[in-house]
Formats: sequence, structure tokens, C-alpha cells
Amino acid sequence: MYNHAPEGYICPICLAVQGIESEQTMAKQSDIVYRDALTLVYVNSKFVGNNPGHVIVVPTAHFENLYDLPVEYAHAIVETSQKLAQALKAVRKCDGVWIEQNNEPASGQHAFHYHMHIIPRFEDDDLRNELAKGNTRVTEASERLPYAEALRAYLGT
Amino acid sequence: MYNHAPEGYICPICLAVQGIESEQTMAKQSDIVYRDALTLVYVNSKFVGNNPGHVIVVPTAHFENLYDLPVEYAHAIVETSQKLAQALKAVRKCDGVWIEQNNEPASGQHAFHYHMHIIPRFEDDDLRNELAKGNTRVTEASERLPYAEALRAYLGT
Repeated sequence: MYNHAPEGYICPICLAVQGIESEQTMAKQSDIVYRDALTLVYVNSKFVGNNPGHVIVVPTAHFENLYDLPVEYAHAIVETSQKLAQALKAVRKCDGVWIEQNNEPASGQHAFHYHMHIIPRFEDDDLRNELAKGNTRVTEASERLPYAEALRAYLGT
Repeated sequence: MYNHAPEGYICPICLAVQGIESEQTMAKQSDIVYRDALTLVYVNSKFVGNNPGHVIVVPTAHFENLYDLPVEYAHAIVETSQKLAQALKAVRKCDGVWIEQNNEPASGQHAFHYHMHIIPRFEDDDLRNELAKGNTRVTEASERLPYAEALRAYLGT
């Protein structure tokens, strides 16, 4: 419903779920911090402002957005988001957790596979301004690795 | 877990759920657009920038944040959020839907009862900048009424 993926879209998130690294996939297998039958979580390849190392929760099957998500996946995603919010609190000693989930390009959706951002918040991180300025940068996998390793150690994954 | 409500906190969202209007409650009963055993939805009393009439989903029992939410409420909230996202698409003819959910003051949480924002998005609404500028305003119930009535008519509530 209200899908925007172009004809022949090669879904980078499906590739990541399948364990494939290619030119289409910014996410590397070393970014993955959690997996169950219905959900996958990885450290986002883009870091935002003063909130590096945030994570993305996705369904393991392809659905473009919230409107399309079958109920079993919707349930699994919210359960996984809780696990990760608690993990970020423990591992990052963050002062809060921000959930953002964008549906359709007008809402800022760029990858056409449902995904939820879970961002550790810190006092005075000025996140809204950083996001408004578009202050994000694509990182190397090596820069993401310590964030992924700390979450895997905490989650036992 | 990680709760911030001060001692003796009078929860405005619990009052709204209980059908009570008072000085503590910005939400009026006429703002409510959907209710089931575990969730309640109302038109937010604050309008944001160019995206007026967005809605808030809350659990009908008191939990401060995502960390604390029992799984049955978490499931119900994501199901209700889907209903409302689809309703906003139909009623507002919006171009997208934005989900935001803030945990703890450092993440911008002001009311200490879990709540999820569901915001209709429009091309060029410049929402990130409007939010960064803090461009929100408290409205009169009468201004919210057409938004609530349109959603109730669609949802049959």
C-alpha cells in the first residue's frame, strides 16, 4: 500500500538480511547485533550528529512500510525495539532513547523496506538541530565495529 | 525503569483515559478518536508547524516509557499505530506518516506516560526544521475538533 520502490528495486535491507554484502548494501554483516526469526538489528552506516552508533530494526521479510507490516512482524519489531532500547541504556549509558520511523519519501524514507531508528540520546546532544541540518555522515565499517561489538556482548549474540 | 515522573505526579494522560477533564489535562474528551481495552488515541493539543492535527497513541494503563511497557500493551500500541497511520492516509490525503516516540527528558519526553506521535507528512512541510525551531502551539479544543471528527467518521468510532 502506498509503495514507492521503483520497478526492479534491489532492496539493500533484504540483501543484509540474506547475509550478502555488495555495492548496494551499506550495511555489513559485522554491523548486525541481533537476529531472530522475524527481526534483524544493525548499527546504521550513517552516524548522526552527536549520536553515533544508533541502530536500525527491520523485519526479516520485505515490507515497504508500516501500512504493509503483517501483525506478527509488527509485534516482533516492537519487542525487539524494547530489547535494543534497554541495551542502549546499559551499553551506552545514554540519557534517553529516541524512536523514529519514516513512511514514504515525504516522511524521509530512503530505503524502501520498513525500518525503525533507535537512537541513544544524551543531554544537550542537540539532535533535532543536527537532523534538521542534515548532519549525518556515512562511516567505515571499522568505525561502527566497537558499537556493534559492545551491543553483541551485552545481548549475548 | 529510568523513570522521571516527580513524586506525586498527577498524570494528565491517565486523567484523559479516565474521562476526566481538569487543569492538568490539555487533552479533552472531544479529542479522542479511538479506544480499545489497551490503547487510546487523541488529537494532540499541540499543533506542529505545517502538520496540524497529529495524533498520540497511549496505553490505557500507566507506564512511563518504552522500557517499562508490558508486551501486551506494546503489541496493542503498534497495532493501533497501524490503524491510525492508514486512517491519516485516507482522511488527510497525506504523503507520508512519521512516527516519533521519546523516552526520558533527554529525548524530549515531557508527559511521563508512554506516548507515540503519529504525524501526517506533506511534501515540503519542512517538519524537521519546524521541530528544530520548536514551532509548536497549543490549540483550542474547537480547532482540533474537525480533525478528530474526520478520524472518528473514518474509523467508525
